[in-house]
This record gives sequence, C-alpha cells and structure tokens, in this order.
Amino acid sequence: MEQEIDLKKVAVKDDFWSPRQTLISKVVIPYQEDIMNDRIPGIEKSSAITNFRIAAGLEKGSFYGMVFQDSDVAKWLEGVAYSLAIRPDEELEKRADEIISIIARAQQEDGYLDTYFILKEPGKQFTNVQECHELYCAGHMMEAGVAYYETTGKDTLLDVCRKLADCIDRHFGPEEGKLHGYPGHEECELGLLRLYEATGEERYLALAKYFITRRGTQPDFFKQQFEERGGKMFWEGGFQNPDYYQNHAPVTEQTEAKGHAVRCMYLYSAVAELARLTGDKDLTRACETMFRDVTKRQMYITGGIGQVARWEGFSFDYDLPNDTAYAETCAAIGLVFFAHRMLKLSPRGQYADVMERALYNGVLSGMQLDGKRFFYVNPLEVNPDLSGKMPGYEHVLPQRPQWYACACCPPNVTRLVTSLGKYAWDDVRQETSAPGSLPGVIPSADAARRIIYSHLFLGGAADFDDIKISEETEYPWNGEVQYTIAKTPASPWAFAVRIPGWAPGAVFSICGSSEIHLAEIPDAGTSGSGITSFARIDADGMEIQAGRKDGYVYFYGEWKEGATIHISFLIRPRLTYANPKVRADSNCAALEMGPFVYCFEGIDNGQDRGILLQELRIPQDMRYKITDIREGKLQGLKAVDFTGEYLSFSPDDVPGSSPSGTAGSEEEPLYSSVKPSVKKIPMRAIPYFAWGNRGIGQMRVWMPKE
Amino acid sequence: MEQEIDLKKVAVKDDFWSPRQTLISKVVIPYQEDIMNDRIPGIEKSSAITNFRIAAGLEKGSFYGMVFQDSDVAKWLEGVAYSLAIRPDEELEKRADEIISIIARAQQEDGYLDTYFILKEPGKQFTNVQECHELYCAGHMMEAGVAYYETTGKDTLLDVCRKLADCIDRHFGPEEGKLHGYPGHEECELGLLRLYEATGEERYLALAKYFITRRGTQPDFFKQQFEERGGKMFWEGGFQNPDYYQNHAPVTEQTEAKGHAVRCMYLYSAVAELARLTGDKDLTRACETMFRDVTKRQMYITGGIGQVARWEGFSFDYDLPNDTAYAETCAAIGLVFFAHRMLKLSPRGQYADVMERALYNGVLSGMQLDGKRFFYVNPLEVNPDLSGKMPGYEHVLPQRPQWYACACCPPNVTRLVTSLGKYAWDDVRQETSAPGSLPGVIPSADAARRIIYSHLFLGGAADFDDIKISEETEYPWNGEVQYTIAKTPASPWAFAVRIPGWAPGAVFSICGSSEIHLAEIPDAGTSGSGITSFARIDADGMEIQAGRKDGYVYFYGEWKEGATIHISFLIRPRLTYANPKVRADSNCAALEMGPFVYCFEGIDNGQDRGILLQELRIPQDMRYKITDIREGKLQGLKAVDFTGEYLSFSPDDVPGSSPSGTAGSEEEPLYSSVKPSVKKIPMRAIPYFAWGNRGIGQMRVWMPKE
Repeated sequence: MEQEIDLKKVAVKDDFWSPRQTLISKVVIPYQEDIMNDRIPGIEKSSAITNFRIAAGLEKGSFYGMVFQDSDVAKWLEGVAYSLAIRPDEELEKRADEIISIIARAQQEDGYLDTYFILKEPGKQFTNVQECHELYCAGHMMEAGVAYYETTGKDTLLDVCRKLADCIDRHFGPEEGKLHGYPGHEECELGLLRLYEATGEERYLALAKYFITRRGTQPDFFKQQFEERGGKMFWEGGFQNPDYYQNHAPVTEQTEAKGHAVRCMYLYSAVAELARLTGDKDLTRACETMFRDVTKRQMYITGGIGQVARWEGFSFDYDLPNDTAYAETCAAIGLVFFAHRMLKLSPRGQYADVMERALYNGVLSGMQLDGKRFFYVNPLEVNPDLSGKMPGYEHVLPQRPQWYACACCPPNVTRLVTSLGKYAWDDVRQETSAPGSLPGVIPSADAARRIIYSHLFLGGAADFDDIKISEETEYPWNGEVQYTIAKTPASPWAFAVRIPGWAPGAVFSICGSSEIHLAEIPDAGTSGSGITSFARIDADGMEIQAGRKDGYVYFYGEWKEGATIHISFLIRPRLTYANPKVRADSNCAALEMGPFVYCFEGIDNGQDRGILLQELRIPQDMRYKITDIREGKLQGLKAVDFTGEYLSFSPDDVPGSSPSGTAGSEEEPLYSSVKPSVKKIPMRAIPYFAWGNRGIGQMRVWMPKE
Repeated sequence: MEQEIDLKKVAVKDDFWSPRQTLISKVVIPYQEDIMNDRIPGIEKSSAITNFRIAAGLEKGSFYGMVFQDSDVAKWLEGVAYSLAIRPDEELEKRADEIISIIARAQQEDGYLDTYFILKEPGKQFTNVQECHELYCAGHMMEAGVAYYETTGKDTLLDVCRKLADCIDRHFGPEEGKLHGYPGHEECELGLLRLYEATGEERYLALAKYFITRRGTQPDFFKQQFEERGGKMFWEGGFQNPDYYQNHAPVTEQTEAKGHAVRCMYLYSAVAELARLTGDKDLTRACETMFRDVTKRQMYITGGIGQVARWEGFSFDYDLPNDTAYAETCAAIGLVFFAHRMLKLSPRGQYADVMERALYNGVLSGMQLDGKRFFYVNPLEVNPDLSGKMPGYEHVLPQRPQWYACACCPPNVTRLVTSLGKYAWDDVRQETSAPGSLPGVIPSADAARRIIYSHLFLGGAADFDDIKISEETEYPWNGEVQYTIAKTPASPWAFAVRIPGWAPGAVFSICGSSEIHLAEIPDAGTSGSGITSFARIDADGMEIQAGRKDGYVYFYGEWKEGATIHISFLIRPRLTYANPKVRADSNCAALEMGPFVYCFEGIDNGQDRGILLQELRIPQDMRYKITDIREGKLQGLKAVDFTGEYLSFSPDDVPGSSPSGTAGSEEEPLYSSVKPSVKKIPMRAIPYFAWGNRGIGQMRVWMPKE
C-alpha cells in the first residue's frame, strides 16, 4: 500500500510557491479567522465560531448562517494544520486548539456534531441528507481532525471525529433499522477514508464503501426522505433531479460527468481512494471512465470544470462556453483531488498533467495576487459590458469580490496550497500485490520494492526516512530541475520523474554524465505491461537504468549519496488548439507556457484606445518575446509579447497609432463582402491566474488565430 | 405628400410570393380564426372572440387571456383586409363583418374599447398605461379599421376606431385635466397616424405627436401612475427601467436602441411617419440616428433584432450572440415597418436593403414552410443539446411550435405578407415642398413631378392610375427583372429602380437598347444634392436619361406605352464577413445569395454520421454549385453545394467516408498543440428562412472560414 506523504517531511522552498504559502499562512488564514469570528466590519456576518460556542453552551443565541456553516471552521482548521506543518506558529496553534476545544464541547453525547441541527432543528438530524449537508460538514471535520493530528500530533479533534464517525455509522448502513442513505453533498466518504487510514478502523472503510456503492441504486433514498418529509424541499428551487447529486446511476455505471461539479469530484476522489484501498477493479474502471469524460470532453484548458452556473456543474461533452463558464475554484480543486487520487491509483503522467493544469490555472486564478479577494467563478472570457450584468452573465464577475456568504472557495484554496507537498511526491513500496501500486517497471523482480515519484516540480526537499532528496528549480518559469540524493539505502530503488505532457522533449544528466535525450529512453507506452527495455547511464561509477512509461521516466539503480539527477526541458510559449468539436473555440488558439495557460487582457492590448480583444488575432507566424514584468501588481511574472494583427472594417489606421486616427467611425459597415483589413499591432499575454488584478477590463484565453 | 399605395392596385404574382400569400390566405388566416374561436382542440384556449361577445352582451362569462388579447383579433382583421384585397373571399369577408359587428357592439358608449378592462377591471381604464396595453390594442384596431375600409370600402370598423380615437383623445393630451401619458407598448401612434391619413382628422395627428414627443420627458408619467397605484406592478417581475419602454429620453435624444425591440421599432416607425407628415427635421434626424444604431451595430445578418431574451430586446453595440439570439419575428417585422417608413421619408437604397434583408430572412423564418407552425425566436445557431434545454437557452427552440398563448407573431407575419405590395412600390408626386419627398433627381424642374419607385422585385403589376407597370421576374432566385410600361401619360416622369446593395453590378436595357452597365450611369452618391449628370439611352425613339443616387437608378423621360426596362444583376453565392467588433462571428463567414442569407443544417452536413457543424469550415477557395431542390419539404428552393473542410483531432478519416472509419474515437485529445487535421467534405447550405423544416438538428448561419 502507498504511503501517505507526511507534510512535515516535504518542504516546499521555491520562488513561486513559498511566497504563496506564506501569503496564505500570514494573510488568508488570519483573515478567514477574523471573518469566522465576525471581526471584520462590512463583511457579511459569519457566526461560524459563535454557532459552535452556542452549541457548546458557552454563549447564548441562535444559529446563524448557511446550513453548511460548520464546514468553514473545519476547512479552516485543516488549512491551519497544514500551515503549522510548513510554518510553525505557536499563537495560531493555540487559537486553533481553543477552537477545537469548543468544537469538542459542542459535540453531543452520542457523537453527533452539526450546529445547524443542534441549535435550529433539534430532532431533525439526518431527515434531509439530500440537501442539508450534515454529512458534508462531518467529512470536512474528519479531514481536519486527521490533518491536525498528523501535523501537530494532537488528537482532541481526531477523537471528536471518531465519535462523530461512530455516530454516523450507528445511523447509516445496510442493516435493518439503519438509514440506507448517503450524503447529498459528497465529502463524508473522503473524510471516512482518511479517518480509516489514520486509525485503521475498518468500520470507517466499510461505511465509506457503503455510501459509495449504495448511491445511485434503487430505491432512491433521497426520494424516500423527500416523501417522508411531505414533499418539502429545504432550498427554495432546490434540485430534485438525481443527476445533480450523481444519484442517477451507481458510480460504476456513470459514464458522463453530470450535475454539481464539486460534488462529482469529491465523490470520484473518494471512489478512487476506495479503489486503491480495496483493489476493486470495477471502481478503478469507473474512475477511469469518469476521469476521461471530465478531462477529455468537459474540462476548460485552465482545468476549470462545471460549465453551467445554474447548477454549478457539468453540461455535455465539448460544450465549453468561455464567457458563461462557471468553473468554480472549488471544482478545479476537486479535480486536483481526483487527479491526485488517480495518480496514487496508477502513476500516469496524464493524471499529473491534469493536476498541474488545474493547480496553476483554474485554482490559482481563484485568489487575487495579494490574497485578499477571491473568485468563485473563473471565466475564460470577460467582457465588462456583459459580464456580471446581462442575463446569463450575472455570475461572471470581472473582478474578485471580497468574501462570500458561502465561503467555500477561499478555505479550499488554503488547504490545497498549504498541503501542496503532498501532491508533489509519492513513496511507493510494493509490500502487497495490490494492483496499480507498482507499474512493473523494475528489471529485477527481487528489487522492485521502492519507487520515489516526483509528480510536480517544486523546489525544496523530501524526506522519506532512508531516502532523502532535495530539489532545486526555478519552475514554473524555467525547465531546469536538479535533484540531489542526500540519503539512500544500499539497495537499489527507482526514482521516477514526470515529463509534462506539454514538454516537447527533455534532456537528462546523472551526476554530470553526458546528456541523454528523452527520445533515447525506451518507452513502454501506456500498456499494462512493465518496462522491458532500458537505456543505461554510466554516471560517477553508478550504473543507472532508465526506462519510460506513461509519462514518467524511471531511473533505477544503486544510488550513491550526493548523486544528482538533472532534468531539463524547454519552457517556451506554445499555441494550443481545442478539439474542433468545441464550438466556443473555433478558429482560435490559446497561448501556454510551461504549466501556465496565458490570457489577454484589455489593459495590455489597446483597451484605452477603444480596441476590443475580438478585433485582435494571433498571426500565422508568431514571433514572441518573453518579458519579465518588473513592477506593478504582476511583478515577478513573465509576459509574452508579440506582433499581432488588428482586424477592422474601418478605413482608419489602428486606433491611437496616429494622432489623427479616429477609431470606430460611425459609418463602418456591420457586414461586408470585403474581408476586414489586417494591420500590425503589439499584443501581450499574461498568465491566466493573474488576470483581473489591474481593474476591470476585457479578458480572453482563446484568441482568434489566423 | 406621398401617396399611400392602394393594395388592390399592386398585384403580386410570382413564383415566390404568390404561393406564400395564398398559403396565408388559405391556411394561416382560417387557422387563426379557428384559434380565436377556440375551435382547435389541444391548443391553449384563446377566448379572443368570446371576450368581445361577452363585452357585447351576446354571451355570459368572464374575460380570459392576456391583457392584450384583443390585439389578436385586430391583427387578424388587418390581415383579412389585405387578404381580401389580393384574393377576394366572400365567405371570409362575411365572417369578418360579423366579428366587426360584435366589436362595434362591444364598444362602450364613450368609445372605449378594451375587453380586458370592460370585463375584468371596469373603472381601472388608463390607470396603468405602462403595462396594460389598452393603447396598444387600440392602435392595432385602428390599423385594422383603416385597412378594412381601404380594401373593402366598409366603414363600420373605421367608425369604431374614430370613436375609440376620440375617446383616447379626450383622456390624453397636454391640456389640464387630461392624462399626460403615452402608450407603454407603442402602436397607438401608428394607428392614429394611419387614421389621420385615412380621415384627415388633425386631432389624430396631434395626439400621435403628443404621444411621441411627451415620451421620455419629465415628469415620468409611468412612474407617476406607478405611485398612484400604490407601487403595484401588473406583471410579476415587470420591467420598471424606463429604457425598456424607450422612456429614458425624448425620442430626439435617444442615440442607441434600447429595451424591448418591437416597442422600439413601432415607436420609431411612428416617428418616421410623423417626420414625413410634418417635415420635422429633428424627428428625421432622430430616426436616422436610431436606424443607424440598429442596423449598423445591433442587427443580425438576418435582419433579426433584439439580442436578449429576458426583455425581448436590445443589448449593446456589436453584441450579437448567435445561439442565444432572441430576434423575435415581430421585431424583424417592426424593422421592416421602420425601414419602410424611412424609405418613404427619404428614398435610399440602404433602407430598402434592410427592409428586404429582414423580410426574406428574419421575418420569413418565423413561419414553417407549410404555414402551420411559427417561431417567435429566430436564432442564428441551434444546437439541439443546448437549445431549448440548458439555462440561458430555454427560449431558443430547435423547432417551430404550433401556437402560442401570446400569439403576436403569426398574425404579424400574416398582415405583412398579405400587404407586401405596399412595400414594393412608391408613387411620389412632388405636390408640396415637403422635404424628402423628392430626391431632386430630375433634370427639368418643371417636369419633376412624378417618380415611380420599385423597391422590391416582386412579379406582378402596379396600377397608379395614369401609369401602369407590369413586372416579370424570377427573383429572388434570378436577377433578371423586366418592367413593361402598360400605360403612361404624355408628360415625362421618372422610373426609379433600386439596385440592391449586395449586387456586384447591374446591366440595363430599355426596349432592347444596347446594354448599359451600372458603372456607366453617373452616381450622385448619397449627398443631399440631386443628380446633375446623366447617361442618355436612345431606345425605340425615346430619349431616356439615367442617373444614380442613393442606391436607386432613375430613368427619366417621355415614355411610350409598351416600353420595357430590363434590369439584370448577378445572383450568385457570396461570402459575407461581420465587423470584427462582433465577438460571436470572429473568423467566420456567412453565405448569402440574392436577398437570402443561407444557413447550414446538420441534416445536410453529416449529422447522421456524428459530424458537428463546428467541425466544418468554409475553405479559402469555395467552388460552389447551385442545386435546385426538387423534392421534400424544401422543394423549389436552391441549395448551395461545395467542397468544404472537416477539421478533426481524430486520426480517423471523415466519419462515414469509409466502412471501417469510427468517428469520435474516445482517445482524441481535447486540447493539442497540433492543429486539427483538415479533410475534404461536401457541404450544403440552404436559405435561412427554411431552416428547421426537416426535424430537429444543428443549424448555423456563421461558419468558420479558413
């Protein structure tokens, strides 16, 4: 079985992520703490902590907030746990301990814990699991409890979660007299599986499995409860269609991503986790099918998912409108979770590629560069006359708002970014014959016990007890990555490095050996069989065998301490095309560089002269220049500059290019049999995640391409 | 002053319009009559006739239907009037007379006539003119009354309308004690102006002028009445923003088309009419400004207008989404009305071009080819998985529905198509110095008394008393038009023929004279001054002078009876491009032929093989073939066939092109740095107005263009 990565042992230290982790520790976490404590004037009241205090008998009052208000506290605590691991803070830990003690006091005798029902609807517990988020909140609390235990060693919250899980286990299950239900918003499955891994309690695994496999079967539990409630819905205009909840078919029979995107991702993350823990092949296949539908047919190039605002969820294959995209930050995070679980199930570069795509684009875009404002919705095109204003575009804000009543996204960004180390590495030991745990890449069966995977390129160091590796890189701006093996056992082991799917190639050198090109390393492809052919690298007296499979290069051998593995791939602007089945991207291209999707903002592209982004076009031959941005909000990022084309029906020159030029003469035709005139114009693209940091303007990712 | 065209004297007789007029007379009019009489099972109850019967005391019961239900009857009667002129039908006339007698009996002592208020809210008359359509219904009744009088000579309904207008005149106006209001849905202005022209009663002109000029001034009458009603709205979620009603500024100060499109068109049609009748230059300028904004910045290529479904109206400049277009049939008809009035105000080809564009495309598309089903909404792109289903697309139906509770569009199509002769001709006599009535094109001031305009190319004959002209043409399929002067006075007069803006040129011949090319005829352009330079044509002993201005060629001279004027222009497929400011049409082209916009339907373009329209592209060099469709629903139309391009990420061949080809292999990428492969594929376009007659499928007007 795969080892859970200990966050304290995988230090991230690089110029891109370290400042972001610090920003989150120093700005976002305290800011959210203030909000949960209702200490920020002008922001909608949260009452999240107060609710627990009231439930704990420490204060008088009544519940306030969303039915899932508790989850804010749970997600914050999970983020705090990770933050404490990467950046110890005694004061913060003390405050978190205090909140945990309140939570413990709020917990009921029987283990039940949900302040909404405790305070507002006592006696109605578990009567509307479809809509009321009790199991969702519980799942988040379990994730927080495990995380806090893992990083601080303190078990107060873990014990709360065990009692809570036991309570849920007494109420739900296949046995007669129990509720034959499952969460309306999936999350408890993930919490239970994590609790199982932390505690070894098989009942938690069994309950997660019950939730996952009961879902989508008949009779429809949600419908039963709906009828038992006399046909009342909790939410006005709440969703009754089963596919909103992924409840239209058993998870093994779902072939298309449907309904609420975050729900779907949390569910299938749990399915993948369960598949890994049990070795269930049907569950594995179901995950592969779902992953394929999402990423090959319903994912924005940014890793954003969920095209439809009304249900914050999926549409249908190849329907990827840019200007009405929902692409919730939490859904991209959910995709990171899902891809990460798929990667643990089966180490394939495609999973890491998707994980990285979502992380650097659709997730990061959720947060303003200063960490003070957040997007829920991450469109790929914004037009200020339309976005946030016109019917169907109300949800597409051209600027990040301060905070939301439903504060799901910011703490989700927090917990992901602070725990990033967990996503970067894997330490695989083939102790069992569990399928998928080893790709069969090692030449000597006897020695095929250990593989260290490097999935993402984060500077820092990783400590796997007998193996220690440090990593130096300027990634994502630069494709030079150097690993140094600081500690190694005498026995041979494999070091596996992902080669990003977008990289045009790569060059390797071990301990300064002569360079070996990716193409020289035999590729076993994506087949089920292992690597059978290897390149041999003689380096500093070590004999290393190199083989490729599924997007990873495996270096296998008896390593020496101090050995270096240098990997180098080109990070240069590249144009990407969408499948022609995608209506919205017809005749367009997107610009990418390294893991970043780039975008075009009006502010860089003639907006002040009245030029609209749709009037610009990427030329046939794009000769670019990469520019370091040295000042302003985008300082530290790299822009891509090139000479583009300005298309116009106006007889005038490019607006603003000459003093007499008058743009948009009234008499220019709306339709013409003459093609628009084409003139040269400078164009600039910036990383998508950084859009909307310089005021309101137009933005688009997909640009017309000659 | 310009003569109103007498419909009985302008016979339409050609292969395109005659069958459509017959269809409307024989199918649509009786069908609507049955609906109004609640004789069609399965269609939502209308009660339109019953409401009048109850109000007339002929029946007991209560009002049923929309607050504007009466307008159905009025519009039907107007259509019947025109139909009787072009295709006499004693039985129909008898039934219409009977309905008119019911209406007359329903009219109140004081002339008031609106069955909703008479039956349902007596005493509330004129207390909510913003929302309640009394003046709208009155306007339609006036148009019907005038039309019925003009074509049948019967004045019962005309008298009803005079009494009704007198009643309104007693209630509304600038005088103290009167309501200082104006219609919430414009239409009464048009009715009053028509009534004025038919009766010469100056009070009707004054009242129309009051309605038009009071609108948009302060204090806001709608707001006043809203407050007097205690802040209650008639419609749940009714619109309170003044621009929905074009009430945000005086008509002379409005520079952008805003709000409800039909309202805006009816208003400015009336403004143009008033400008013509009064010679008011400010009103003329206001109309020109509005016409320019609509047609140069907010009009679909089909002549459809009103981009936004929520308010059935305008958006902002260059915002012309194809797949969410509202483009209500009635709004395109309103644009025909507006363009027609502009044409009467000032004979410019651009007005006729717009009129023709809307007529042959955005209006005709409203009706199924068999006359049995109607579209309100005329999208330029339909995707069956989206349209009519997904949020924001609910209004975009992929197939014409049978009938609507709000039955505004079908009778509007009826009254336009049956009165088409009125739009084809003008007989201008310079009896006054009213501006705009004569373009100053005639060389001899003395003789500059008479111009016959041919605006549209309809086969048939026109009788202007001392001048009679017959016209033979296969237009719109063929650009050969022959006029024969069957009767002429001895004095010289001018015959003016519009040269469509889209025509690449034209060739003329008078009485078989040698051909003269358009380019050989001196063009006075669009300036205010008249034609000063002429080409001379010697034909059969006549000396005809030819000059051009504003899209018309003027042939002036002393005509002989039997003289022929032959005009010939090329009707061939052409590609049209949208202004690059239009986001939705980036890198696309539309195919047009003659007055028709063409479209691509899935059924003709590989839909059965799983090919999507967005996967197709019009190639750089399009070599087309025009195909007569000889069978099926589209029989009689011409298709355009060419070899297009199929773009794909799939390694397979074009789907269906070889037995082993499997389309849409699961593994094709969603994004790729490799451009899609391009393969040849046959493509077919059909006239846009005929889309959606062969089942549900994809459709688009704008196609990706290489």
